[in-house]
Amino acid sequence: MRIELNPLNGMNVLSQVEVKRLEKSSNSNLYHLFRNCALAVLNVGSTTDVSSDVYEAYKDFDIHLIPRERGIKIELINPPKSAFVDGKIIIGIQEHLQAVIRDILFNADRFEEKLVKDISPAAHITNNVFDMLRNANVIHPIDSPNLVVCWGGHSINEVEYDYTKEVGYQLGLRGLNICTGCGPGAMKGPMKGATLAHSKQRIKNGRYLGLTEPSIIAAEAPNPIVNELVILPDIEKRLEAFVRVAHSIIIFPGGAGTAEELLYILGIMLDPANKSQVLPIILTGPSESIAYFEEIAEFVESILGKEARDLLTIIPDDPEKVAKLVKENMIPVRDYRRNIGDAYQYNWTLKIPELFQQSFNPSHENMANLDLHLDQPSQTLAANLRRAFSGIVAGNIKDEGIKSVQKHGKFQLSGDPELMRKMDSLLMAFIKQGRMKLPGSVYEPCYEIKT
Amino acid sequence: MRIELNPLNGMNVLSQVEVKRLEKSSNSNLYHLFRNCALAVLNVGSTTDVSSDVYEAYKDFDIHLIPRERGIKIELINPPKSAFVDGKIIIGIQEHLQAVIRDILFNADRFEEKLVKDISPAAHITNNVFDMLRNANVIHPIDSPNLVVCWGGHSINEVEYDYTKEVGYQLGLRGLNICTGCGPGAMKGPMKGATLAHSKQRIKNGRYLGLTEPSIIAAEAPNPIVNELVILPDIEKRLEAFVRVAHSIIIFPGGAGTAEELLYILGIMLDPANKSQVLPIILTGPSESIAYFEEIAEFVESILGKEARDLLTIIPDDPEKVAKLVKENMIPVRDYRRNIGDAYQYNWTLKIPELFQQSFNPSHENMANLDLHLDQPSQTLAANLRRAFSGIVAGNIKDEGIKSVQKHGKFQLSGDPELMRKMDSLLMAFIKQGRMKLPGSVYEPCYEIKT
Amino acid sequence: MRIELNPLNGMNVLSQVEVKRLEKSSNSNLYHLFRNCALAVLNVGSTTDVSSDVYEAYKDFDIHLIPRERGIKIELINPPKSAFVDGKIIIGIQEHLQAVIRDILFNADRFEEKLVKDISPAAHITNNVFDMLRNANVIHPIDSPNLVVCWGGHSINEVEYDYTKEVGYQLGLRGLNICTGCGPGAMKGPMKGATLAHSKQRIKNGRYLGLTEPSIIAAEAPNPIVNELVILPDIEKRLEAFVRVAHSIIIFPGGAGTAEELLYILGIMLDPANKSQVLPIILTGPSESIAYFEEIAEFVESILGKEARDLLTIIPDDPEKVAKLVKENMIPVRDYRRNIGDAYQYNWTLKIPELFQQSFNPSHENMANLDLHLDQPSQTLAANLRRAFSGIVAGNIKDEGIKSVQKHGKFQLSGDPELMRKMDSLLMAFIKQGRMKLPGSVYEPCYEIKT
Amino acid sequence: MRIELNPLNGMNVLSQVEVKRLEKSSNSNLYHLFRNCALAVLNVGSTTDVSSDVYEAYKDFDIHLIPRERGIKIELINPPKSAFVDGKIIIGIQEHLQAVIRDILFNADRFEEKLVKDISPAAHITNNVFDMLRNANVIHPIDSPNLVVCWGGHSINEVEYDYTKEVGYQLGLRGLNICTGCGPGAMKGPMKGATLAHSKQRIKNGRYLGLTEPSIIAAEAPNPIVNELVILPDIEKRLEAFVRVAHSIIIFPGGAGTAEELLYILGIMLDPANKSQVLPIILTGPSESIAYFEEIAEFVESILGKEARDLLTIIPDDPEKVAKLVKENMIPVRDYRRNIGDAYQYNWTLKIPELFQQSFNPSHENMANLDLHLDQPSQTLAANLRRAFSGIVAGNIKDEGIKSVQKHGKFQLSGDPELMRKMDSLLMAFIKQGRMKLPGSVYEPCYEIKT
Repeated sequence: MRIELNPLNGMNVLSQVEVKRLEKSSNSNLYHLFRNCALAVLNVGSTTDVSSDVYEAYKDFDIHLIPRERGIKIELINPPKSAFVDGKIIIGIQEHLQAVIRDILFNADRFEEKLVKDISPAAHITNNVFDMLRNANVIHPIDSPNLVVCWGGHSINEVEYDYTKEVGYQLGLRGLNICTGCGPGAMKGPMKGATLAHSKQRIKNGRYLGLTEPSIIAAEAPNPIVNELVILPDIEKRLEAFVRVAHSIIIFPGGAGTAEELLYILGIMLDPANKSQVLPIILTGPSESIAYFEEIAEFVESILGKEARDLLTIIPDDPEKVAKLVKENMIPVRDYRRNIGDAYQYNWTLKIPELFQQSFNPSHENMANLDLHLDQPSQTLAANLRRAFSGIVAGNIKDEGIKSVQKHGKFQLSGDPELMRKMDSLLMAFIKQGRMKLPGSVYEPCYEIKT
Repeated sequence: MRIELNPLNGMNVLSQVEVKRLEKSSNSNLYHLFRNCALAVLNVGSTTDVSSDVYEAYKDFDIHLIPRERGIKIELINPPKSAFVDGKIIIGIQEHLQAVIRDILFNADRFEEKLVKDISPAAHITNNVFDMLRNANVIHPIDSPNLVVCWGGHSINEVEYDYTKEVGYQLGLRGLNICTGCGPGAMKGPMKGATLAHSKQRIKNGRYLGLTEPSIIAAEAPNPIVNELVILPDIEKRLEAFVRVAHSIIIFPGGAGTAEELLYILGIMLDPANKSQVLPIILTGPSESIAYFEEIAEFVESILGKEARDLLTIIPDDPEKVAKLVKENMIPVRDYRRNIGDAYQYNWTLKIPELFQQSFNPSHENMANLDLHLDQPSQTLAANLRRAFSGIVAGNIKDEGIKSVQKHGKFQLSGDPELMRKMDSLLMAFIKQGRMKLPGSVYEPCYEIKT
Repeated sequence: MRIELNPLNGMNVLSQVEVKRLEKSSNSNLYHLFRNCALAVLNVGSTTDVSSDVYEAYKDFDIHLIPRERGIKIELINPPKSAFVDGKIIIGIQEHLQAVIRDILFNADRFEEKLVKDISPAAHITNNVFDMLRNANVIHPIDSPNLVVCWGGHSINEVEYDYTKEVGYQLGLRGLNICTGCGPGAMKGPMKGATLAHSKQRIKNGRYLGLTEPSIIAAEAPNPIVNELVILPDIEKRLEAFVRVAHSIIIFPGGAGTAEELLYILGIMLDPANKSQVLPIILTGPSESIAYFEEIAEFVESILGKEARDLLTIIPDDPEKVAKLVKENMIPVRDYRRNIGDAYQYNWTLKIPELFQQSFNPSHENMANLDLHLDQPSQTLAANLRRAFSGIVAGNIKDEGIKSVQKHGKFQLSGDPELMRKMDSLLMAFIKQGRMKLPGSVYEPCYEIKT
Repeated sequence: MRIELNPLNGMNVLSQVEVKRLEKSSNSNLYHLFRNCALAVLNVGSTTDVSSDVYEAYKDFDIHLIPRERGIKIELINPPKSAFVDGKIIIGIQEHLQAVIRDILFNADRFEEKLVKDISPAAHITNNVFDMLRNANVIHPIDSPNLVVCWGGHSINEVEYDYTKEVGYQLGLRGLNICTGCGPGAMKGPMKGATLAHSKQRIKNGRYLGLTEPSIIAAEAPNPIVNELVILPDIEKRLEAFVRVAHSIIIFPGGAGTAEELLYILGIMLDPANKSQVLPIILTGPSESIAYFEEIAEFVESILGKEARDLLTIIPDDPEKVAKLVKENMIPVRDYRRNIGDAYQYNWTLKIPELFQQSFNPSHENMANLDLHLDQPSQTLAANLRRAFSGIVAGNIKDEGIKSVQKHGKFQLSGDPELMRKMDSLLMAFIKQGRMKLPGSVYEPCYEIKT
């Protein structure tokens, strides 16, 4: 099957050099990245979170760009059928394809910049993330804060899923916009609910912002409701993007990835430089999931202390209350930004300590070397724990991670026995609740904890 | 509670005379109509289909128009809470309020027109319906036919409801628009599904057209997804509006009202003058509801003949097939209109015989006098049967009808014994399946069939 | 030549009855009105102000409406070439054609309304004018007053014309919109200037509102910059429309028509009921035209008194000062409307006394009977003088008036000798300055003043 | 005077790093460029073409960027008054300011790119020009070619100016868009005319594209009608931008700059690689200017040959004919692009030989060394002549050029005596006709031709 797509309005006009860059022959690395990400967004509604299964199933898939008088056409060879209705691509998915092209080219264009005097390397990374978001047209002046980042698992049960929809609905009724990691489960539900609510409120420019990364996009294919898709180069840039665009964070039940996200934001908010920052964090789920949150809260308090625990507001089983609280909190968020002169659309003043900002490569060696002892500042401990969970996510559903575990065996994690025990029991709970992988297979842990 | 609404964009600027017309004092009939319809649209998500319950529950509700420098404000006294989120009205509902004002004023303005030479009274009624729709901004030039009228019960079970959503989703994916009677059940599901699909297809001007009438609006409150609401003066005008704007009709399971609609379109399509008309009629539902459709089909065939039966396409349990067929059929619909020079947006050439077009007042006398014998042309029989079911709907959920039955006892229907038996058994099936009224009460028939 | 026009977006979808109403055969009066107005707007850039010349030159012009699947097509037979560029109609002119259809149908639809209790006949006329403007989409909620009515002659010299452009430019730079009688000269210049200024201010929805009437439209063809055209049925409705939509009035040099307009607004503003009304009236022109304004002012003061004279602000030769003053005055205009609760878009509270509101038919008898003595209230005198000038305009450039004068001889005006002398000398000045008719012919007065 | 501007919609959100780059302290070169260009666009309607006069007059002008919660504010200290109306900046001018910020930052960001394999350095320059235009939002998919590049002098007489307006009007009536060098004279007239015509055709997205460069922007301040302004880094990039976006070129009377432009396009079109290119070149002016064009044509034919002369179509005194021809020619232009698969919005296939593409620095040495002999290929000769005229433009109105001539004396040009004589007489004609500089001073040539 061969299909040619005419360029949509939002499609950047490409230069000849850019088209050449994405050609099969000229640059095999960039081309492969392009092809795989394109395949991932086309493979919508996929029921697997094993990237290699996706790649395997569509070995004969291919994609090319063809310059034409009105713009660049996209040629698809043997694409997944799920992206099409009666032979025509779903427009939302073509937009995602175009986002893939845009972001891969933009990141490929990044070379060493002339550092501006008096600006730190950290500031340059922050600037870099801003640049990617702006290029993706995600940064635009807004009248007041309204973006709610929703985190949570890709594998959740139906009751939890319906709950995330209801929360999204209540947020949407209040004119709020949604940002998630753009996969299934807790990443999809809030957008679905908000879509319906926005329709009732006649909000035509509702935002459903999805932030993803090449190594996870195939395992968590963006759903077509996402109307702003950005592919950040790695998980650290993605996390930084999340927290700098967020005006409020809601955490639904989830697995290792959700734990990573929680540790990330807690570690950052614990930094004294962020003491005056206003960024509400709400944990919520249906009554069935209360135990889950209590476990998490207990883990946080016992490991990172009461200060960390107090950063979290837990609201069981009350979507309307969640949405009301988020909405009310937009006022102090707005006041804070206005007073300090920071932009609504990008939180420049939030300090992200180096340990959180720099890329962590979850090799077996790096994982084994993680310092997971209690005798370190809680913020550093949070950073190391974040990395541990990040590695587990990689071992679970990122292609490279899975292959690495297949080759070298399970990740070895060691540290303070008490901490190890708690981490183990938290992870065991995730497994028991089916949060690590989509249902359909028996989950085999990718790690071993030496307690 | 007292709330003032600022005029929305779509709000017609009103003249001083019009404001005066809707004042409480000056014209109590018009004011009461206005107040009741306003209350009905505010009472969204209502769980009753008993209008008088609604009116009773909000006896202290009041509404006034207040001229201001930027337009007309609407003042609400003690409105239902369900229309509000954190004290602010849902925009979709305010649009419905404005539609109420617009349509009540427009219909109040209708006085005898100077008849244009060579134009029949029937053509004037047809013109009148067009006028109301155009004034409601529902008639606008379109590039090709795309409006699917969905009929079906307000009281259906959850499996059937989910099925109507899925059909709406598949229609929406194909860029089709939805028109229904705008209450709950089969009138809401297709719009909900289409909203999600339109969002994935980035269709921002999706149409969710609701056609209602003052006597039923409180029992079947419009859901806020309806983004074009028209209040026609009576059921005959409403039915005429349905079939003249329809490019295709889908009939889901329903009760007496759905039977009325089916008989209406069948009677019209049986008219020899409509022989070449292209207007597909599809009956569909989940596999659980197949029996229902077979019953209906058998009733139609035995009473109105094979010709009538052949006008219906029954598709059990296949939303995608339904949507595909509807989409494909848009081409012959378009070709027919183009060849005959008729407008896409209003089917002028469809002949509606007098018996179907003229208002039927379901008084006890009129109901008892209905000629329900088999020895009449099938089209005339269809017209009389349509009136019988129309009367039953009135007795079930229209305020006036209910009160009349309370006062004068059940409607008496008589006619050909064979026909009466079949009708009785069909109605019994509706009752058994809970299609006559919303669940929550025991249904007491408003009619007696003398077999 | 035969041309078919596809319906533009703004085109109302017409009903079959409406199409029939405008057919050549069915209703010859309405059809002729339609044909003549259509011809007038097509004859853009015409260099004559003699309607009959226009009608004579295009005797073989014809126009029909043809229903099609996407709306109503307009068929033109032998239209004036000036409306076309390379065989395609100028879009602005097609919009005017559509305005003609809309307004002629709307006015034809006016039959006796049921009078609402407690509402006077005068209020009904005012309501009627509102209705026509609203139907023409001219009435819509605005954030603050910004519409400047510019009056002045159709026949002015080049220095005066450039001056009106410059005033329009200065108004446009300040975001103000323009309303005129939509012919050439002082009716065109301000719109041209404002167009350029709006472009520099990136105002894409600048309003160039033209109010005209069937009897003058051929003599003063609307220029295509007019993007909102309304054809009111007669001069009195047109004048009422002007003053009710105006937030400020600028009067440029002109002839009898301008004198009529000046007397109209003065007579109204002199009414005690309008004492608190805020409606600035500015007379302005290039330094060459100062004498003209002094003459007018002197006439006003001597005949209507100092109170009338004080209503006028004369600003010679300073477009920027004019625009600044107009802009500044928008604040008291806004405050007045807000305080009294009157609409920005239509001045309901302005009282228009009966003598000004009712149609005056300038027959020879009516003209001869005009009471032009000084021993009457100044407001009544203003009303009678207004009618005298109105009759002269008719005799000068309205088809019916010209024919009547050809048949019955000059209008005879008589009254107080002193007043007659002043009126005569004012009219003589108009003639000498070439303000009565477009250049190219010797002006022969249509009146005789018995001094 | 100190003014703060709120960011307009089109304003790119800036990063902290970018704001820092434009700070007064951190980077004085970039800041000075920024300040001077900002001053130039604010100094609209300037009556001088001497940049240093502008800089001198506004020595105390200053500009800063201030980050705020809704975006970046622009602070202006002592800006020219002409940019303001009643204390508020003209929106068109603020857009120009924002274009200055955008383009200066974008060009400052250009560092050595990783060259893509198989792509020549020339292709990289072409890509670079594309990049700047795309970043300025000037490149977007279009349905068919419609952009007319108009070249001509900044100093032309009133008859010529009115003629350029009329040509623009006729182009605008045909839906065509205008691109010029965006200064006064022949760069402003066509835009003014097109604005009015677009208004009559209800074209709301008419394009008035201005391409300029930092060294000339102060001498030829962009007029506020320009609604897409791009500041290219030098004249060669600017010329490349002109010819790659052009679908047709009209050349009005002008001086040395116009001659430079003419030689540039002729030299390129003479390249055998461009033989099949379709790019009409029309020379036109009022009847008074015919002599001028004959002189030019004779010069071209005698120096570059009949082939070059035949590339030019001269149309004296007929704006409608010019516009018609341009419009008709859009069809072969479209066909050529479509057949060859080149983009409508950027002519990638046009070959620009190295001599034309590379920057030429008009130092005294470089000017003196120009090879202006006849015994070289006509294309090379055209390139060298282009450089000679480019140098003269610099000496006339570019700040650096003027200063250099003040310091080192007149440019010395030498070469073939016959050619030198012809060049001399052409330049003398320009001087006599007042085309070198704006009126108001005696023009002193910046060159000496050794004949």
